[in-house]
Amino acid sequence: MIQKTQPDNPQLFFQNPWDRWTSYLQMCDYSKIFIISDSNTKQHCVPYFYQKTGLSDCPQYSIQAGESSKNLSTCEHIWEFCLNNQIDRNSLIIALGGGVVCDITGFCASSLLRGIDFIYIPTSLMAMSDAAHGGKNGINFKGFKNQIGLFNAPKAVLIDTTFLETLPDRHLKNGYVEMIKHAFIDNPPYWEELCDYPWPLDTETLKSYLKKSIRTKMDIVDLDFHEKGPRKMLNFGHTYGHAIESMALADGTDILHGEAIALGMLYEAWLSDQLFNWKSHWLAKFTTLLKPFLPTFTVPLDRVDDLIYWMNGDKKKSNHKIGFSLLEVPGKGRVDIDVKPELIIKSLEYYNII
Amino acid sequence: MIQKTQPDNPQLFFQNPWDRWTSYLQMCDYSKIFIISDSNTKQHCVPYFYQKTGLSDCPQYSIQAGESSKNLSTCEHIWEFCLNNQIDRNSLIIALGGGVVCDITGFCASSLLRGIDFIYIPTSLMAMSDAAHGGKNGINFKGFKNQIGLFNAPKAVLIDTTFLETLPDRHLKNGYVEMIKHAFIDNPPYWEELCDYPWPLDTETLKSYLKKSIRTKMDIVDLDFHEKGPRKMLNFGHTYGHAIESMALADGTDILHGEAIALGMLYEAWLSDQLFNWKSHWLAKFTTLLKPFLPTFTVPLDRVDDLIYWMNGDKKKSNHKIGFSLLEVPGKGRVDIDVKPELIIKSLEYYNII
Repeated sequence: MIQKTQPDNPQLFFQNPWDRWTSYLQMCDYSKIFIISDSNTKQHCVPYFYQKTGLSDCPQYSIQAGESSKNLSTCEHIWEFCLNNQIDRNSLIIALGGGVVCDITGFCASSLLRGIDFIYIPTSLMAMSDAAHGGKNGINFKGFKNQIGLFNAPKAVLIDTTFLETLPDRHLKNGYVEMIKHAFIDNPPYWEELCDYPWPLDTETLKSYLKKSIRTKMDIVDLDFHEKGPRKMLNFGHTYGHAIESMALADGTDILHGEAIALGMLYEAWLSDQLFNWKSHWLAKFTTLLKPFLPTFTVPLDRVDDLIYWMNGDKKKSNHKIGFSLLEVPGKGRVDIDVKPELIIKSLEYYNII
Repeated sequence: MIQKTQPDNPQLFFQNPWDRWTSYLQMCDYSKIFIISDSNTKQHCVPYFYQKTGLSDCPQYSIQAGESSKNLSTCEHIWEFCLNNQIDRNSLIIALGGGVVCDITGFCASSLLRGIDFIYIPTSLMAMSDAAHGGKNGINFKGFKNQIGLFNAPKAVLIDTTFLETLPDRHLKNGYVEMIKHAFIDNPPYWEELCDYPWPLDTETLKSYLKKSIRTKMDIVDLDFHEKGPRKMLNFGHTYGHAIESMALADGTDILHGEAIALGMLYEAWLSDQLFNWKSHWLAKFTTLLKPFLPTFTVPLDRVDDLIYWMNGDKKKSNHKIGFSLLEVPGKGRVDIDVKPELIIKSLEYYNII
C-alpha cells in the first residue's frame, strides 16, 4: 500500500530565487537564522548569500568539505553549536553547500528539538539536480552510506545557478549524471535531447535541463514519498553505485558520487538489457551518453565478492534480497528485481568492451 | 496555524492485547523482529513476551536500565547491533521496557534506514500512561533532556497491565503522577474521581483510570501532533519538572521523572493560582492529591538561578522566552505564558508551607 503522507511539498525558488526568499522570510518571522556551510562554501558562497539577502553575522558552522564529514561526530558538533547559540523551535537552519552539507543539515535539523525548519541552498549541480529534492537526508555510519537518516523535506529549496559558474568541470559532470538518470528512467524525449547535445553545455541549456530534471524527480517523489514503490526507480544505478562508493571509501580511493553512479548505471543498463531484451541500440546509445562521465577505473573482476558484500549492506535491501531498480524500456522501470550473483559477475566484463 | 499532519494514529492494543498482537503480525509479514529491552526487562519481561507471542530467539539488545542510558552512545550501540543483525526496511523493532526504552527505541528506529516500524510494549505505569503515547521520542544530549529526537508514532502500543504486578510502589506512583496531570488539565470529572479515591488503588480501578488517561492524552495529541498549540498543555508541570530533573542529573541526585513532575505541577499550580485567581479551594485540593507523590526534597531557594538556567535550556522555549503551560481553571489550559523571575523565586516558598 502506498500512502502519500508528506504534509507539505517544499517550495522551489528557481526563477528570481532571492525575491522568493525575501517573501518567504517576511511570512515566517524566524527568531534566528543559522547557516551550515563547508570549508569551501564558507569562503566562496556565504559572502554571496549575505550580499543577496542583506543578512549578516548569522551563527555559522562550517564542516570539512567532503563525504568523510558526513558522520555522527559532525552531527554532534552541529547540534552542540546550535544549542550553544540558543537555537529554539522558531529558528531556521540554512544548508549552504553541496549534497553532503544538505544531507547532514537535513538530518541534524530534523532531529534537533524534534524538528527545526530548514532550507537547502545547493551550490553544486549534484545537489541542485538531485540531493536537495525529495526529502531524504542522512549520514554514513560504520562505513555504510546513509544508514542513519530520515524522510523529511526542507521548507524550501533555493536554486541560484550563479554558484555553478566557478564549479570545476569534474563537479559539473558529477551532477549531470543524476540528470541523465532522471531523463532515462522517466522521460524518454528528454533523454533523446541529452543524447543529441554533447557535453559541455552552455549555461542556458544546462539551466533548462536542470529544471526538467527537478520536475521529473519531484513528480516521482510526489507519488511515493516514503519509497515503498515507484520512487525506488530513482535508485537506478545506485545498487552498484553505492557499493562502489562504499568500497572506494574503505580503500581510500577518490571517487565522486556521480562517477560511481555513472558506473552503476552502466552495469544496471547492461543487466536491464540482459533481463528485459532491450532493443539492440538502447544499450549502445546509453553507453555513449555516459562515457564522458565514467571514472577511469572500475571494480576488478577479482573483487566481485567485495562488491556483493557492500551491495548486501545497502539499506534498500528488504527481506534479505538485494532489490535492483532496472528498466524494462527507457522511461519504464521495474523495482525490487532479484539478480543472480553469476549475472553480477558477468556484468563487470561489460566495462572492458565499451 | 495548526496542521494535522500525522499520517496514522498508532493502534492501541488494550483489551486482549496479545490477540490483537497476533492479528497485527499476521497482517504485516515482517522479515525479522528485534527487541530492545533494558537490564531489568530483559530478565523479567522478555520471557513473558516470548511466552505470550510464541516467538523465540529474536535479536535482542539490552541497554542499562535508567535515564543515564538515554544518550547518543547507546543509540550507536543499538544501530550497530541492528545493522550487524541484518536489519532491513521490512523489519520491526519492539521496545519492551519503560519510558527510557520507548524513547530511545523510537528515535533509533525512526532514524535507521530512514525509518523502521516499531511497536511499544511499555512495562512501567509511566510509559503505559504517558511516554508510549503521542509520538515523541528522543534522547538527552549534553545534559539537557530530550534535545535530540523526533515526532514519529509507533505502529502500535500494547498495554498489558500484568507487567505492573511486580512494579515497586515508588515506580507505580511515578506513573500515576502523569495520570493526575491528564485528569487535571483536561477532564475535571476524572480529576474529582482521583481526589475521592486515595492511593494505593486496586488493580481494576487503576486499569480503568489508565484507559481514561490514555484517551485524554490521545485526544489532545490528535488535535496537534507537532505541538504547535493545544498539545503544549501536556507540558503542565514540565517546565519546572524538566529543570528539576536536569539539575538532579547534574548533581547525581536520585529522582524519578514523575517525582520531578509532581513537584513541577505543585509549583505551576501555585503560579496558575497567582496569575488566574483560582477559586480558593482548588490549590489546596490539588496539593492534597499530589502530596503522596512528592519527593522528600525540593529546590532550595539559594539555587533558584540554577533552576532558571535549566529552564532556559528547555527545548520548548521559543523566541527566547520560557513558555509556561498553566491552568486558567482545572480542565482549561493557557500555553506560552511568560512568568517573571520574581514569581518563580516566590513559588519555591510554597513547598515549605504545604
